[in-house]
Amino acid sequence: MRSVLLFYLSYLLCLCLGIVCVVFVCYWNNTWRGGFAWDGTALQFNWHPVLMVTGLVVLYGNAAVVYRIPLTWGQNKQPWKLLHAGLLFLAFFLSVLGLCAVFDYHKKGGIPNLYSLHSWLGMCTTVLFTAQWVLGSGAFLVPWSPMAFRKILKPVHVWMGSVIFVLGIASCISGINEKLFFALKGNTNQTQPYSKLPPEAVFANSLGILIVVFGLVVLKILSNPEWQRPEPGPDDESSRYWLPIGSDRSIQICYRNCSVSEAKE
Amino acid sequence: MRSVLLFYLSYLLCLCLGIVCVVFVCYWNNTWRGGFAWDGTALQFNWHPVLMVTGLVVLYGNAAVVYRIPLTWGQNKQPWKLLHAGLLFLAFFLSVLGLCAVFDYHKKGGIPNLYSLHSWLGMCTTVLFTAQWVLGSGAFLVPWSPMAFRKILKPVHVWMGSVIFVLGIASCISGINEKLFFALKGNTNQTQPYSKLPPEAVFANSLGILIVVFGLVVLKILSNPEWQRPEPGPDDESSRYWLPIGSDRSIQICYRNCSVSEAKE
Repeated sequence: MRSVLLFYLSYLLCLCLGIVCVVFVCYWNNTWRGGFAWDGTALQFNWHPVLMVTGLVVLYGNAAVVYRIPLTWGQNKQPWKLLHAGLLFLAFFLSVLGLCAVFDYHKKGGIPNLYSLHSWLGMCTTVLFTAQWVLGSGAFLVPWSPMAFRKILKPVHVWMGSVIFVLGIASCISGINEKLFFALKGNTNQTQPYSKLPPEAVFANSLGILIVVFGLVVLKILSNPEWQRPEPGPDDESSRYWLPIGSDRSIQICYRNCSVSEAKE
Repeated sequence: MRSVLLFYLSYLLCLCLGIVCVVFVCYWNNTWRGGFAWDGTALQFNWHPVLMVTGLVVLYGNAAVVYRIPLTWGQNKQPWKLLHAGLLFLAFFLSVLGLCAVFDYHKKGGIPNLYSLHSWLGMCTTVLFTAQWVLGSGAFLVPWSPMAFRKILKPVHVWMGSVIFVLGIASCISGINEKLFFALKGNTNQTQPYSKLPPEAVFANSLGILIVVFGLVVLKILSNPEWQRPEPGPDDESSRYWLPIGSDRSIQICYRNCSVSEAKE
């Protein structure tokens, strides 16, 4: 019970932090960067941070923790698989749109693409995300995909899911840092320089820290074995319930969702 | 046997990538940034990336995986604890020295401190690292520290260890990105601009990607339950060997380091 309560508190924190991140990135670009448009100007660029943070971080993170909600464990997994895949498709779509925003802005302004470490890391993340979505859908949504293939792919899919999430966050952090150096140049563009920490800098730095905290909450939820959905399929590696044996080799049976003492009774 | 072989291959990769990262960051600063000094000039700043990458990433990552080496599992844990703590102390010392290099350079050049997102994230990482080292040493090295305190702290210590490592990598990525924008300004300082991707930019971007790959190898080693050191102490949660039970509730005994089929025999 305590574990379930702790999960819901963490999940609530995850949802709230996600919303705050989206609100912060929108507010930053709307208030200090002039708002949004799709006209090849800097206003088009402003979609880039909004769409990447919303897609690659917030939606992606929420899609990753869907299976951890205990309320869904007694139910058929298929709708939750569809929700997981659907949220990730939306995350993927927003991320690609976010890339289109910056590539189109660069093209119209004659600015070179893909030279910074931020862009290299971002592209690695997007390529891995694409491969993950295609392979994951092919393996886990297509009904006739072989069970052996699913079994091999599942641990890779779970691990790569976290890797892509961490890379996405590192890309966002380096991107926000880069954007603030570009935007807050002091005398050259009538802004206070970044080094003077004007309100925009404090706000956008705080957004960066909030993204990191959101990422840590998501990773904490994903890494807690007590919060993993029990799988009933006999062929599935993750279907097993785990029993710890003490070093004295006496067996202490502990089914998931019950404490050691309960299991002993 | 296959698991142990896979561990040593991963560990070899981790060691090689670590050495390559240190060589790359030294070569970058020596070849393109003018080398090293401790005189308040830009040459002093060059110690900053070298010491942070070496301390906060490479030494830290290697210290984290020390307990995973199967060769050490049959031996007394104390010397490995001391090695773990010693490597982390060296990592901490180099990181603090790396911070001194940049603070002193800023002070002598009249450059403000702690305004960029990179610096905020880096400071969060260092503060957490300090707390982790002090608490970890107090709990696990001091012989009279209460067992109950160790038991409570251990999962937090393990989780925070990975968190600090990921934050350290994110700080390094944003720092390398920031440095390249500062250093490669084109006409203003007789360099080719970053956007033209001169050899220095390709090299330092590659360093960033190598740091990320090193980080992923370390995290993969840390996250594999088969590579966790078995703990014999009866009071230690992690001392238990785990047995999976299939969903058909037939018990399949599987001690660590033997396959399911071996255990069944």
